[in-house]
Amino acid sequence: MSTKTPTPHLDRVTGPADLKGLSLAELTALAGEVRRETVEIVSQTGGHLGSSLGVVELTVALHAVFNSPGDKLIWDVGHQCYPHKILTGRRDRMLTLRQAGGLSGFTKRSESPHDPFGAGHSSTSISAALGFAVGRELGQPVGDTIAIIGDGSITAGMAYEALNHAGHLKSRMFVILNDNDMSIAPPVGALQHYLNTIARQAPFAALKAAAEGIEMHLPGPVRDGARRARQIVTAMPGGATFFEELGFDYIGPVNGHDMGELVETLRVARARASGPVLIHVCTTKGKGYAPAEGAEDKLHGVSKFDIETGQQKKSVANAPNYTAVFGQRLTEEAARDPAIVGVTAAMPTGTGLDVMGKRFPSRVFDVGIAEQHAVTFAAGMAASGLKPFVALYSSFVQRAYDQIVHDVALQNLPVRLMIDRAGLVGQDGATHAGAFDVSMLANLPNFTVMAAADEAELCHMIVTAAAHDQGPIALRYPRGEGRGVEMPERGEVLELGKGRVLQEGTDVAILSYGAHLGEALKGAELLAAEGVSVTVADARFARPLDTDLIDRLIDAHPVLITLEQGAMGGFGAMVLHYLARTGQLEKGRAIRTMTLPDHFVDHGAPNEMYAWAGLTAADICKTALAALRPANGKVHKLHSA
Amino acid sequence: MSTKTPTPHLDRVTGPADLKGLSLAELTALAGEVRRETVEIVSQTGGHLGSSLGVVELTVALHAVFNSPGDKLIWDVGHQCYPHKILTGRRDRMLTLRQAGGLSGFTKRSESPHDPFGAGHSSTSISAALGFAVGRELGQPVGDTIAIIGDGSITAGMAYEALNHAGHLKSRMFVILNDNDMSIAPPVGALQHYLNTIARQAPFAALKAAAEGIEMHLPGPVRDGARRARQIVTAMPGGATFFEELGFDYIGPVNGHDMGELVETLRVARARASGPVLIHVCTTKGKGYAPAEGAEDKLHGVSKFDIETGQQKKSVANAPNYTAVFGQRLTEEAARDPAIVGVTAAMPTGTGLDVMGKRFPSRVFDVGIAEQHAVTFAAGMAASGLKPFVALYSSFVQRAYDQIVHDVALQNLPVRLMIDRAGLVGQDGATHAGAFDVSMLANLPNFTVMAAADEAELCHMIVTAAAHDQGPIALRYPRGEGRGVEMPERGEVLELGKGRVLQEGTDVAILSYGAHLGEALKGAELLAAEGVSVTVADARFARPLDTDLIDRLIDAHPVLITLEQGAMGGFGAMVLHYLARTGQLEKGRAIRTMTLPDHFVDHGAPNEMYAWAGLTAADICKTALAALRPANGKVHKLHSA
Repeated sequence: MSTKTPTPHLDRVTGPADLKGLSLAELTALAGEVRRETVEIVSQTGGHLGSSLGVVELTVALHAVFNSPGDKLIWDVGHQCYPHKILTGRRDRMLTLRQAGGLSGFTKRSESPHDPFGAGHSSTSISAALGFAVGRELGQPVGDTIAIIGDGSITAGMAYEALNHAGHLKSRMFVILNDNDMSIAPPVGALQHYLNTIARQAPFAALKAAAEGIEMHLPGPVRDGARRARQIVTAMPGGATFFEELGFDYIGPVNGHDMGELVETLRVARARASGPVLIHVCTTKGKGYAPAEGAEDKLHGVSKFDIETGQQKKSVANAPNYTAVFGQRLTEEAARDPAIVGVTAAMPTGTGLDVMGKRFPSRVFDVGIAEQHAVTFAAGMAASGLKPFVALYSSFVQRAYDQIVHDVALQNLPVRLMIDRAGLVGQDGATHAGAFDVSMLANLPNFTVMAAADEAELCHMIVTAAAHDQGPIALRYPRGEGRGVEMPERGEVLELGKGRVLQEGTDVAILSYGAHLGEALKGAELLAAEGVSVTVADARFARPLDTDLIDRLIDAHPVLITLEQGAMGGFGAMVLHYLARTGQLEKGRAIRTMTLPDHFVDHGAPNEMYAWAGLTAADICKTALAALRPANGKVHKLHSA
Repeated sequence: MSTKTPTPHLDRVTGPADLKGLSLAELTALAGEVRRETVEIVSQTGGHLGSSLGVVELTVALHAVFNSPGDKLIWDVGHQCYPHKILTGRRDRMLTLRQAGGLSGFTKRSESPHDPFGAGHSSTSISAALGFAVGRELGQPVGDTIAIIGDGSITAGMAYEALNHAGHLKSRMFVILNDNDMSIAPPVGALQHYLNTIARQAPFAALKAAAEGIEMHLPGPVRDGARRARQIVTAMPGGATFFEELGFDYIGPVNGHDMGELVETLRVARARASGPVLIHVCTTKGKGYAPAEGAEDKLHGVSKFDIETGQQKKSVANAPNYTAVFGQRLTEEAARDPAIVGVTAAMPTGTGLDVMGKRFPSRVFDVGIAEQHAVTFAAGMAASGLKPFVALYSSFVQRAYDQIVHDVALQNLPVRLMIDRAGLVGQDGATHAGAFDVSMLANLPNFTVMAAADEAELCHMIVTAAAHDQGPIALRYPRGEGRGVEMPERGEVLELGKGRVLQEGTDVAILSYGAHLGEALKGAELLAAEGVSVTVADARFARPLDTDLIDRLIDAHPVLITLEQGAMGGFGAMVLHYLARTGQLEKGRAIRTMTLPDHFVDHGAPNEMYAWAGLTAADICKTALAALRPANGKVHKLHSA
């Protein structure tokens, strides 16, 4: 960073304690330096920029007023934590952000004592903070707990459950509502409309505290406006906000970029709070960096970029992106069938559903961060006769497991689950790994469970899902680019439970499920170079299994390898259950189930992560050779061969 | 039913259409007959009594005003649906309720077109209703949709997500809040406190509608009180309730046992609503049957009982109940270790945590119907240094899967998951089957996963969980009585990943995981009678596996059977993965994984259900014999034998 702007205040900060003696002017100057450094870092690493820029002053103010790590700062989602990392002893490692072996892009317990509770998924912070608050009440060495949560994240049911419980327990804790009116997608839902109304009606400088005890101690310049603000916010004297009805003291709205207002409000709240307090802080995503403030997505997540222009250095794609293919092909099917509707949980762009949404706005539903509701809402639509496609990231499907079991599978309703980001996803790391969707779904009665081996298969499977009205059907596909295969004009309806054979051999059969097919073919090439003849098949379905194909493979090869970008208990396990049930394990074939490993895989480039996971072509080759020529030197050959 | 009270009005009802011409007096009389018949039926079948008695008038009024099945009545949870079943063509089958082959104790799509969306788990109804409402807007043949949801169920995050989305979409739909201030356990949470406040302050006869358009058309006797009620409810003219802030029109509170008030309010709402409307109906659980009204639990769920006294015919227990053992033993550990805390999601009695709660009230947390929050709240407590035991039913663990993965497993936090009602549960049927917890947990890195084979094992495992501070640990145990084994004074800390051998044999090894051990031993007896020598082992752990034990069993027996009360992808799958990885499938042993079957198992007595599932001692015997002596007549014997 040779062109680095001077950072005289930041250079004196080795940890949060160094903020304690600073004046407001110094804290303000420090925030400016943190902001510039954040931009400089992310321009070189890529990452979550807009959300971090929005909380620079808030982060500085929190560390000036509270005492981390004794006090617990819990950042919801965690992608806004770059300023926090800079101030908590990780400044010198910031350029390793999201790189293999480097800092996580989220908060992470194993990384720093200043990260008391890691995240990645949203809406967990209030629950965790309440847990810490109760810990303190029961004698654990915990100071104050502060959850910082965005206006998108707080709409999730889980956050509401936590607010409701905290309002009931009355434990002292702080929830900072970081209201930037802009999560990843435009805001959704009645609550956000309500927040907007509050923020529009009340002047930033005016503060309202429900508890008189807090209100009378508010900072000088804003105290006088407090009672007036109370009336403005609630439209009546003595009226209660949504949060007060849930049992919280409410303070706000506070200007999240005014250091004086932030610090004084936090100091008063810290000094006076006896129960749960919600502090409503209004921020601007991308604040202070013009290209971010001007961008539609506020540069939420970016690749490396040019600081002057904000222009991102996007790599040139070699093949169509799975998400883009999904968005386009589903839209084409929706044009043919008016019963097709789409559901996303706050990820219209991330899932590609925005494409259909632009063409058929009344048929695409963004329910907000609400995966549980998304699935049962879709089940209701399916019961009414519609054909809902619910597009979720694999790791977020975990949020709707009971709804998938209880409302969809059990009732055999034709909900189409479109599972994006299946398998390892790269720099977002373990929290976002799509590891468990196959093991979640492959044992569910009534479900059909597919995985796309490439972007052409994705086309076929979208059409197959649209045509399948007899029960629920799921389809997984990975993040990123396809394999560059030829694309069909329109997909074809696949026969359920039928795979396909890509190449025939005699020694080893690789039965691949999903997008690792390319690696299977490469593994077969490596094996061919060793003189091993390999069959490569694409199972297409984890449920129903292609039992004819499995029977043929097990009969004709001494070694069978199943391959999947998922955890144990998924496709390979279903193959083994089948072979056990049908008495085919008695054949004594060498079977290996290659899955994600039995540990969480840290962030890195996807190919690095699959290498750590032991799922490269070389690993396939090695596994096959070891199975074929075990240590005792006896080469497995079929008696019939 | 020879002593049956005459039911002249009910006898003329073959379906909801027959209610259309009835006067208020006739509807009231009909309700009385439905109530008496409900009591008479449940006295003979057992079931959910209190909640059904609370909604008798509401059910009659809904069917008088709306037109099921074109209009969709969606009962949340569904256990209050007995009056609905009586009125919708199922009266003659009510005595088969919850019996094998008979009517379900919940709503069920396959049972009647009047059950448009089945349930069993709570808080799904608003999501489903909104799905139907959108279906109608998009041209599907759907009338009005009405979700009927209790004040306990509406506190769940999922219900909030649905309210928030409905308020955003503004689709016409009705949510009937059935406020009986009494779900299964006493109410929890700030929202319920708020509801109580509303209900206390406003006279039953006074109605409030936010939309003037509705208010001016309210029924005569209550219209005049409406504006006054609005002020009472919201404490100020023009003020908004919680639900109005979420975008709903709010009407209420309505006396849920006054037929006139109910019918007229529903008629006005039906005639005038343009968007989402919440109707707040106050009811009394157990209404109209003195023994129920007088009971602490309002006779929520009962066995057969004497109508005169309400005295239930409880069968005499032969052995301690698992839940009771858990409650008692955890309390004893909590007395020894002040760091132990308990968490339940609205099931203090059902999970046995009430025992600890009575002795250590500040250390047991009932978070309400909020499984997602429960788990992450516990993770926060664990991070603070406490030792949280989260007690959930297996099928409700499904509601917290992402929190278990993302907040507990990934962060390796020592949360203790106590999984009650694992396996098939009997009359509550498929919605409540604890089928998937093993497949959910056994592939999660960092987790230790146990199952208790009997009530003494449960004691050991509770102590083991209390002692295990290195990471998360789960323990499953079934509904009902133990096996009558000798109980230890105090449990011992078990060695992690070590099973035990109960009897040694040479032909067949049965490796049982969890509470089916008794059936395994019976199966071994049957096999012994066939001249087959059987080893029976209790794996205790699905993770880490006892690999030494598995190695020994696979080496010493031609047939290995794994046995578990759970779905595919669980314990048996992990054993197969291990054998594949270590090259032991090449030994050609006959392996069978006995799991729950690949279909949902309908309600019945647990032993009936396990018979349908193919998991009886006779099934074990048959499976072993078939593996030992396959069709080709060649008896599997080890070469070394």
